[in-house]
Amino acid sequence: MALIVQKFGGTSVGSIERIEAVADIIIKTQQQGHQVVAVVSAMSGETNRLISLAHEIDSRPSSRELDVLVTTGEQVTASLLAMAIIRRGHPAISLLADQIGIQTDNMFGKARIESICTDRLNQEMEHNRIVIVAGFQGRDREGNITTLGRGGTDTTAVELAGALKAAECQIFTDVDGVYTTDPRIEPNARRLEQITFDEMLEMASLGAKVLHLRSVEAAGHYRLPLRVLSSFCHSKGTLITYEEPDMNKAPVSGVAASKDEVLITLKQLPNQPQILASLLTVLAEAGIAVDMLTQLNHQLDKIDYAFTVHSNDHHQVIELLTHKQESLGFVELVCDKEVAKVSVIGIGLKSHVEVIAQFYTAMSHENIRADLVTTSEMKISALLPQKYLELAVRALHSTFLLESIE
Amino acid sequence: MALIVQKFGGTSVGSIERIEAVADIIIKTQQQGHQVVAVVSAMSGETNRLISLAHEIDSRPSSRELDVLVTTGEQVTASLLAMAIIRRGHPAISLLADQIGIQTDNMFGKARIESICTDRLNQEMEHNRIVIVAGFQGRDREGNITTLGRGGTDTTAVELAGALKAAECQIFTDVDGVYTTDPRIEPNARRLEQITFDEMLEMASLGAKVLHLRSVEAAGHYRLPLRVLSSFCHSKGTLITYEEPDMNKAPVSGVAASKDEVLITLKQLPNQPQILASLLTVLAEAGIAVDMLTQLNHQLDKIDYAFTVHSNDHHQVIELLTHKQESLGFVELVCDKEVAKVSVIGIGLKSHVEVIAQFYTAMSHENIRADLVTTSEMKISALLPQKYLELAVRALHSTFLLESIE
Repeated sequence: MALIVQKFGGTSVGSIERIEAVADIIIKTQQQGHQVVAVVSAMSGETNRLISLAHEIDSRPSSRELDVLVTTGEQVTASLLAMAIIRRGHPAISLLADQIGIQTDNMFGKARIESICTDRLNQEMEHNRIVIVAGFQGRDREGNITTLGRGGTDTTAVELAGALKAAECQIFTDVDGVYTTDPRIEPNARRLEQITFDEMLEMASLGAKVLHLRSVEAAGHYRLPLRVLSSFCHSKGTLITYEEPDMNKAPVSGVAASKDEVLITLKQLPNQPQILASLLTVLAEAGIAVDMLTQLNHQLDKIDYAFTVHSNDHHQVIELLTHKQESLGFVELVCDKEVAKVSVIGIGLKSHVEVIAQFYTAMSHENIRADLVTTSEMKISALLPQKYLELAVRALHSTFLLESIE
Repeated sequence: MALIVQKFGGTSVGSIERIEAVADIIIKTQQQGHQVVAVVSAMSGETNRLISLAHEIDSRPSSRELDVLVTTGEQVTASLLAMAIIRRGHPAISLLADQIGIQTDNMFGKARIESICTDRLNQEMEHNRIVIVAGFQGRDREGNITTLGRGGTDTTAVELAGALKAAECQIFTDVDGVYTTDPRIEPNARRLEQITFDEMLEMASLGAKVLHLRSVEAAGHYRLPLRVLSSFCHSKGTLITYEEPDMNKAPVSGVAASKDEVLITLKQLPNQPQILASLLTVLAEAGIAVDMLTQLNHQLDKIDYAFTVHSNDHHQVIELLTHKQESLGFVELVCDKEVAKVSVIGIGLKSHVEVIAQFYTAMSHENIRADLVTTSEMKISALLPQKYLELAVRALHSTFLLESIE
């Protein structure tokens, strides 16, 4: 008997009918001889409904109170799912963050899990109960409710699976696995049976929406087998493994696209190391991730300094940096929201120099100007005008013959 | 500076506009020099919406899970109200049952508070924060979420006020005080400036919907001044006091009406004390209150045994007693839902024998047959066919000249 943690996202539990279907999936897993802990999101639309209520009161509501508000969404789903399982004659119990000791820091809205106490979970499982956990939520040291930010329910599932030493963590979503690229952009995209952890990490960090980066990182920490599959159809999904890559396979395994990028340029920043250090410290202290850092237009002791941030963070970045304009000494802050990032991912890309050449050829063949290009061991990324994103994805997918690999 | 606990029910917080209005009431109270702890219900309609979701899954959902589900309603209101106060520039914080240690027994759906730990509350008040507490909820010893049943948010407010030794507990509702009777039935009903605790206790137990019985009892335990007032208009409401009654005032202070009664009759029950004891023990163990116990139709060693229960309990009563029919030995259980109870309340009624005579005269004058009449120190009650209830209320209100007393 293996312990399996199953996570069900918003669309998987988007209606009473869907919750009933999820109850059947969980019971079927149990009947195959497994113990199941399920982690659930709010019913789709519910979190937005709650945030709208808050915004009727305050356009920037208290972050502590916003967390108290939105965590009710997962609590509702967890109790309804437990009821559905109990009605089918199987013992079940819903538990919240404080009941299973999910302790986080106190960064409301994007807290990080510090520890999980599995006593209550183990106790309920010893009583053969299916445990339904409200995802996305935690408690800080003072007992205040926190939320884990984007992809938070995935994070809860992975961290619980790690703490419980689960055999597998299954992320049920509305797509049936990880694809070579977004099938809505490229109809020839193909589901991968397996993907290595390192490749998945890059896919997630580059905007493949199937799994959130933080949950993939956490899975890697525990070397936890992670499976992405659909609650809407029967399919084995995609298994994320920790095997050594096969060096004979095609170097590129996927193309990732992200529109959640905003390009920030600080014009005529003094070119002094302590200024750059001070700039990046301000952003780091606010918990803001920056990417594609580039220096442009060197003129004597001034540079134009550009980087991308997640679009959710850009208001905060503008506010923080405008506030520091005098001490940082830049002349103007320019914000470009009409950008997107396209990337190809594969194990050992850097040793395949021809891939970089093919990347540039594919882009230029479509007359797409890639402003910023960065390369690493695992990926090649380019920032481009957002309107060219779909075209770039299709061109790269075709260039690297992703329809036919494996 | 006095500490005031204010409770706001469902209609008082029924919309974002109403929540904004309540924020203003609380801030105004604070600006008058008081410390405020506010206790809130779910927005009106929200609890029913949640229960409907549960009933889509199971007509008799798990009582533990139902409590997890419905407590989200108060959590939503508490966070929204805290946001509204914070936006007005006043520090505020919402707290849930586990955060202020509201410990209850484990009778899901109708739990009783065993203890409150005021440490966190006092700590927040020392920081000059207005504390908003989610009403109606508790935690049992194992940390499971419980709810306090009917009138639960009133109970939370009164118990908190007692534990904090508050100067006054103010129950804001959609009526501006306690009336001589229901103004929807008798337009001449008059608001009472004051009412004694004992009278209020009878009013509540007899179906005057302003305050729930359990919260009045709890207030009496602490000898807590309790004020009923409206969040929709400015009025001093009605103050419930612990003063000795003025024996020169009119003996009757109010007429109460209740349609939440169901008459249960057990036909041909063996007339043996141990049978009656066994019957009442079954009901007591299920936490069901019985009223107006009467024995009818004595025939040799058989009786017809009748009593009333709250309409919410009658399905359970029928199920419990039908299950015990063989051991109890009755021949038939008859259930009459078309009944109602009317009562007159006043201090020292029993010493005013003319009141009982007037009661019967008023009823017979309207040709109303009162099947069961019970009297006590404080009240005279009659069970009658439901269709006569309004007529009976008006007749009694007029008989005892309640328009003009005080």
